Amino acid sequence: MISRQLENHWDEFLSALEGIEWTTQPNQVAKLSQDYFHFSPVLQPLLGEKRADVVVFPLNEAQVLRVVKACVAYKIPVTVRGAGTGNYGQCVPLEGGVVLDLKNMKTILEIKPGWVRAEPGAKLAQINKLASEIGWELRLLPSTYRTATLGGFIAGGSGGIGSILYGWLGDRGNFLAAKVVTLEEEPQVLELRGDEVQQVNHAYGTNGIIIELEMPLAPSYPWAEGIIVFSEFMAAARFGQQLGESDGLIAKLISIHAWPIPSYFTALQPYLLDEHHAVLVIFDQNAMEPLEDLVNEFEGKITFLSCRANKVLNLGEFTWNHTTLHARATDPNLTYLQSRFPSDPKLELVQRFYEHYGEEVMIHLEIVRYQGQVSPCGLQVVRFTTEERLQEIMGDLQNHGIAIFNPHTYILEDGGSRTINPLQVNFKRKVDPYGLLNPGKMRGWWEMGEEGGGVNPYL
Amino acid sequence: MISRQLENHWDEFLSALEGIEWTTQPNQVAKLSQDYFHFSPVLQPLLGEKRADVVVFPLNEAQVLRVVKACVAYKIPVTVRGAGTGNYGQCVPLEGGVVLDLKNMKTILEIKPGWVRAEPGAKLAQINKLASEIGWELRLLPSTYRTATLGGFIAGGSGGIGSILYGWLGDRGNFLAAKVVTLEEEPQVLELRGDEVQQVNHAYGTNGIIIELEMPLAPSYPWAEGIIVFSEFMAAARFGQQLGESDGLIAKLISIHAWPIPSYFTALQPYLLDEHHAVLVIFDQNAMEPLEDLVNEFEGKITFLSCRANKVLNLGEFTWNHTTLHARATDPNLTYLQSRFPSDPKLELVQRFYEHYGEEVMIHLEIVRYQGQVSPCGLQVVRFTTEERLQEIMGDLQNHGIAIFNPHTYILEDGGSRTINPLQVNFKRKVDPYGLLNPGKMRGWWEMGEEGGGVNPYL
Repeated sequence: MISRQLENHWDEFLSALEGIEWTTQPNQVAKLSQDYFHFSPVLQPLLGEKRADVVVFPLNEAQVLRVVKACVAYKIPVTVRGAGTGNYGQCVPLEGGVVLDLKNMKTILEIKPGWVRAEPGAKLAQINKLASEIGWELRLLPSTYRTATLGGFIAGGSGGIGSILYGWLGDRGNFLAAKVVTLEEEPQVLELRGDEVQQVNHAYGTNGIIIELEMPLAPSYPWAEGIIVFSEFMAAARFGQQLGESDGLIAKLISIHAWPIPSYFTALQPYLLDEHHAVLVIFDQNAMEPLEDLVNEFEGKITFLSCRANKVLNLGEFTWNHTTLHARATDPNLTYLQSRFPSDPKLELVQRFYEHYGEEVMIHLEIVRYQGQVSPCGLQVVRFTTEERLQEIMGDLQNHGIAIFNPHTYILEDGGSRTINPLQVNFKRKVDPYGLLNPGKMRGWWEMGEEGGGVNPYL
Repeated sequence: MISRQLENHWDEFLSALEGIEWTTQPNQVAKLSQDYFHFSPVLQPLLGEKRADVVVFPLNEAQVLRVVKACVAYKIPVTVRGAGTGNYGQCVPLEGGVVLDLKNMKTILEIKPGWVRAEPGAKLAQINKLASEIGWELRLLPSTYRTATLGGFIAGGSGGIGSILYGWLGDRGNFLAAKVVTLEEEPQVLELRGDEVQQVNHAYGTNGIIIELEMPLAPSYPWAEGIIVFSEFMAAARFGQQLGESDGLIAKLISIHAWPIPSYFTALQPYLLDEHHAVLVIFDQNAMEPLEDLVNEFEGKITFLSCRANKVLNLGEFTWNHTTLHARATDPNLTYLQSRFPSDPKLELVQRFYEHYGEEVMIHLEIVRYQGQVSPCGLQVVRFTTEERLQEIMGDLQNHGIAIFNPHTYILEDGGSRTINPLQVNFKRKVDPYGLLNPGKMRGWWEMGEEGGGVNPYL
């Protein structure tokens, strides 16, 4: 089903695209209209059938501008896509129209110590490969770093590997500048710098098409990987929290998994023990001996340790949202939560919920820094029964002061802060007066009263 | 006055030293028996007249062993000295004897990404110069980094520039290994690794002579320097605390100075305003724009900003203990405190003591990380009247939950944690059975009861 607007103007639209790659081939369109929302049994029925009418692959700014101009002229929805590694339907076109796949805009424009500027389609792994040649790397990575793009990560990601050192993508300094194409009658190209970038940061591409990004880089340590197992879950959790609080021990990943989650890590089985809880760490290899001392203090057992790049297990790919991927590979009935526990060196709430739900809500923690404090994020693996039960569990956690970032909604605000961000809504009014960008995703757009609803107060 | 033991065995001692550099020249001996304890009007009369009998300058391990063997044979006290930049009499020989000046043992033995091994006489600035060639630098530096030695810093330092990123020298991972010469009849050379190094960390050289050290390195960012002034002190303090809590903004120095402290920074006057409070920062130059946004949020004014290495003001030399040095250059009646405020984003105690004491106790804060939390350390500049008043002020702060590290004592434990460290006392029993090393500095040595007092339970 082609959306009405596009159907009525198909020939004009196609001629506007002349020389730009596009496809309507059904299998391709189906694939490029989806992401990993199937992690959620709630999202699956809502998004599984959504399709773009056409997927367009611009090569550069000039082509983006031509596509955008045609879309504005005929009021065709535009949903921007990176690699489609998100889990919340970020790039799923709810109202058909154009999916703008930016995979061909992948140039790494400039790179220097501490800093990179790249096009949105650049893969995170590719940026890291180039950065490592000068001793640097991206500060924050999702577990999908091998395939994910920079633009997609900024539009829908929030943190990941590195968050224990650098906090979150939303923290000042972790996203430096963006070049954005607007969906006005005469599309503009804006350069947002400093705090201005927060207007498009984690906005699912609802308020501008990001066509270049400036990111800070982190120094690249000689990293080592380790797997540590514990017979007591709380020893594993406390070890992880303590490692996070150890300012002299540099780790970029501290990922804690209550049994039976480790049983889902097929490739890591040689290093895991039955009925044991596991902590996966990536750390400065110069900290090997002090780390061993800390492991001994908490009575853990190191089962794998490697400093050599050619002997790593890529432990990052078993953490953050990839933990759920591995769990679901064993049991597709599993799903997950996203939460942040208050900073508490004693981890009392972690213990409470470990004991309370047992294997219905298996504890997976990522130790992070949040507003300067070391805190555990929970990406609990849940044995799904009903949506009501899932909501009940999330409500229970929230009532105990645990922040929930609901991964079972495709609505921008419902998944994240649960509050409408007037900064982002106002920016959308300015740059997308017809509400064509990723429609149906930004709650603030239809809820912010008279000034909202697609009427642009700036025109 | 030559100490009895040395006087009785002078000829034998000298012949044992054959081929090793030494001096008894009074001016040189006087200079090499002192440090910067004159910061403290309390220490000045206690330490001002203390002199070694002879200063010995060994070149290598073999020479150290020969000196030590002679000292043990004739029971001559040995006080180890680096550059003498400490403020608490760390290297002042209370009972005469030998000052062992390690300035000639300054070889940087090996350096690689994240790691360095050096002799104790290596200057911190020299290590940094070499490290910077491979993109690294020392994690923590005192404000005396131009002249201070690595061995002296470990033996008496605790943190400094970099503590906002890496915590303290006492934190696991910030001091990796030490080679130590014992003062037994047959001196041994021990290699301490991992947690074992805590036995000699910040021990004033009372329990072993450190002759090699392994330290972790920090990645070297393209650093920038900035001076920011504020009309309201609490705005300056809150800006600094917020910068420390901003995980995405990399700063290695956040140094906050209430007026009139800025008036003492003669060389910085072009960038300071009358009646204004100042924050000195060293930060990642890629964070320039987000830092400016943060400054604007707190209504500060940037008066100096430079990314260029050849245009820096070396702001680090106006911070930490050097702040007091500059203040005393203007008014020798000024002295200081060392304290740590509890972690509190609202800085309520800072505000209380800013208002309470006014210019009697001028607030100087260094924002640091302590056990994973961002906290202000206070190195308050005090208008000295009497020792009783000084003690009263320190007692008042302590009663409000502020930790005091008294810089007006030469006793190891009284200046730091205020508790005897059995680990260090037991190590002294083992390696210095006759109590010859830096006598009179370690309270635990004479207070830990029957097993103590110089009787070595290990022999």
